[in-house]
Amino acid sequence: MSRIDIAYPPDKVNLREVGLRDGLQLVRTWPSTAEKREWLEREHAAGVRHFEVGSFLPASRMPQFADVVAMIDAVAALGGGYSAALALNERGATDALETHVDEIVCVVSATEEHSQANMRRSRDEAIGLVRTVARMRDELGHKALVNAGISMAFGCSIAGKVEAVEVLRLAEACVEAGADLVGIADTVGFAGPRQVSGLVADMYRLVGDGGFIVHLHDTRGMGIANASAALDSGCRILDGSLGGLGGCPFAPGATGNVVFEDLVYLCETKGFATGIDLAALAAARSIPEQAMPGESFYGGIARAGPPATLDWRT
Amino acid sequence: MSRIDIAYPPDKVNLREVGLRDGLQLVRTWPSTAEKREWLEREHAAGVRHFEVGSFLPASRMPQFADVVAMIDAVAALGGGYSAALALNERGATDALETHVDEIVCVVSATEEHSQANMRRSRDEAIGLVRTVARMRDELGHKALVNAGISMAFGCSIAGKVEAVEVLRLAEACVEAGADLVGIADTVGFAGPRQVSGLVADMYRLVGDGGFIVHLHDTRGMGIANASAALDSGCRILDGSLGGLGGCPFAPGATGNVVFEDLVYLCETKGFATGIDLAALAAARSIPEQAMPGESFYGGIARAGPPATLDWRT
Repeated sequence: MSRIDIAYPPDKVNLREVGLRDGLQLVRTWPSTAEKREWLEREHAAGVRHFEVGSFLPASRMPQFADVVAMIDAVAALGGGYSAALALNERGATDALETHVDEIVCVVSATEEHSQANMRRSRDEAIGLVRTVARMRDELGHKALVNAGISMAFGCSIAGKVEAVEVLRLAEACVEAGADLVGIADTVGFAGPRQVSGLVADMYRLVGDGGFIVHLHDTRGMGIANASAALDSGCRILDGSLGGLGGCPFAPGATGNVVFEDLVYLCETKGFATGIDLAALAAARSIPEQAMPGESFYGGIARAGPPATLDWRT
Repeated sequence: MSRIDIAYPPDKVNLREVGLRDGLQLVRTWPSTAEKREWLEREHAAGVRHFEVGSFLPASRMPQFADVVAMIDAVAALGGGYSAALALNERGATDALETHVDEIVCVVSATEEHSQANMRRSRDEAIGLVRTVARMRDELGHKALVNAGISMAFGCSIAGKVEAVEVLRLAEACVEAGADLVGIADTVGFAGPRQVSGLVADMYRLVGDGGFIVHLHDTRGMGIANASAALDSGCRILDGSLGGLGGCPFAPGATGNVVFEDLVYLCETKGFATGIDLAALAAARSIPEQAMPGESFYGGIARAGPPATLDWRT
């Protein structure tokens, strides 16, 4: 088996919990390290295995991720736990490669406009960082996979429409630069299911089902419908966050990742066994809810529970 | 053109606003007739044409629908307005046929258990009422279409699993009894998109795209994904309610119709022009929100608006 297939078994749908990273980017207060650890442990006990836990940035810029190394260690202590963290520059990648992190996530904007506004660099420079991180990783013999996440892949808050052919060109460039995985992100929740079907089918043709991740936001209520379309078109790795927490500080109006609990339920109703216990997962919401009483938490499963009288695990 | 094709033009997706009926079944307080009229008028101005406005029941049982005749008249006063109302017994049908209502909705439970618990009658008796209403309508030469709505069609809060073949048998019996339209309702929000695809494809084979309605609840967050699956499988008439208001007094945990605004956005992103102005529609929420300050209103479009920089009308 390839390293990717070990990290993300290709015979099932793999759901990445990004709430501890994307979910904490915009919040005013955030959980303590102990609370984050409990959040992790509760979700792990429910069956979640993949966690994006933070970003390697100066604590002065993103104090909520100052404990990223401790979180990576916390995931490593869980049986089968798999950690991912962002590295947005070479310094961050150097720091990441000094940890046991399982996956380093680099970000490439789909549009030049957003790349410059968000990161003050060109898309080519962003792809250059992917190449550098993959090379540093190889030179150190580090186990980490390199994930290149293409933000604004379904539409850009600055440039507007994004052509699928442009995303595919960037995805191919990321793979050529050494990325093991490519993510396509609807950062500002512009996508509809038809658009998702099209781009996912293209990505499937480009890299196969094991090589890409779909990252959705529920900003306009399309999150679960888009996830369903992605699954129908061959996607087997999806991001979500508990209670739909999350957003992007550089993307106005970008509130809420797709709700993790509802995503699990969707997969199960479609016949994809996730290995995740929905009731235990929904109960884990109490940790971030208590730690961040000012934040909004969304989702239908947490409100209504799975159908009690129906065998919803098909 | 057939009467059904005039009521629901088959060259487009037709969205029925059921908030003034389904949305008001469970609420503790409800809008005044003047407020309901404004609610109607605001949605009509946004482009909505089909309204389910109440139920012909004794005002002592459902006082929120005491003004159902006034609401039917209010819809008739709007250009192109189309009204539907429930009749749950012969007395109700008699009253309905004394009005200008465009559609009389009868309800048939998918399971014998729910039929007895909810209506204290068998499914055969419920289908008998469909036959009676169609006959009364014909004898009077009344224009109204007869709509037989099959509740619990995707799973029952009492009996659990519902087989598609059973729903199809009931749908066929309703058509044989004289129903012009058949609805399939996920009354308690048990359905996932795979189940919806299957049953909708079956219904399409049974009655064609003009003859059936899909009625979804967002109880477990699957509403828009299920609507997307229904559209993909040939459904062209869908129910929704502004802000996702709604539920069923006889269905525990059945909160929230699929959000009308998000449903419009879904259709537009999939290339189905609805003729509805999303911004004007979302603004109409202020009427029920102010009239019912204790109720929950949901939806992504109302929170984020349609993408400003993207041509989302494909």
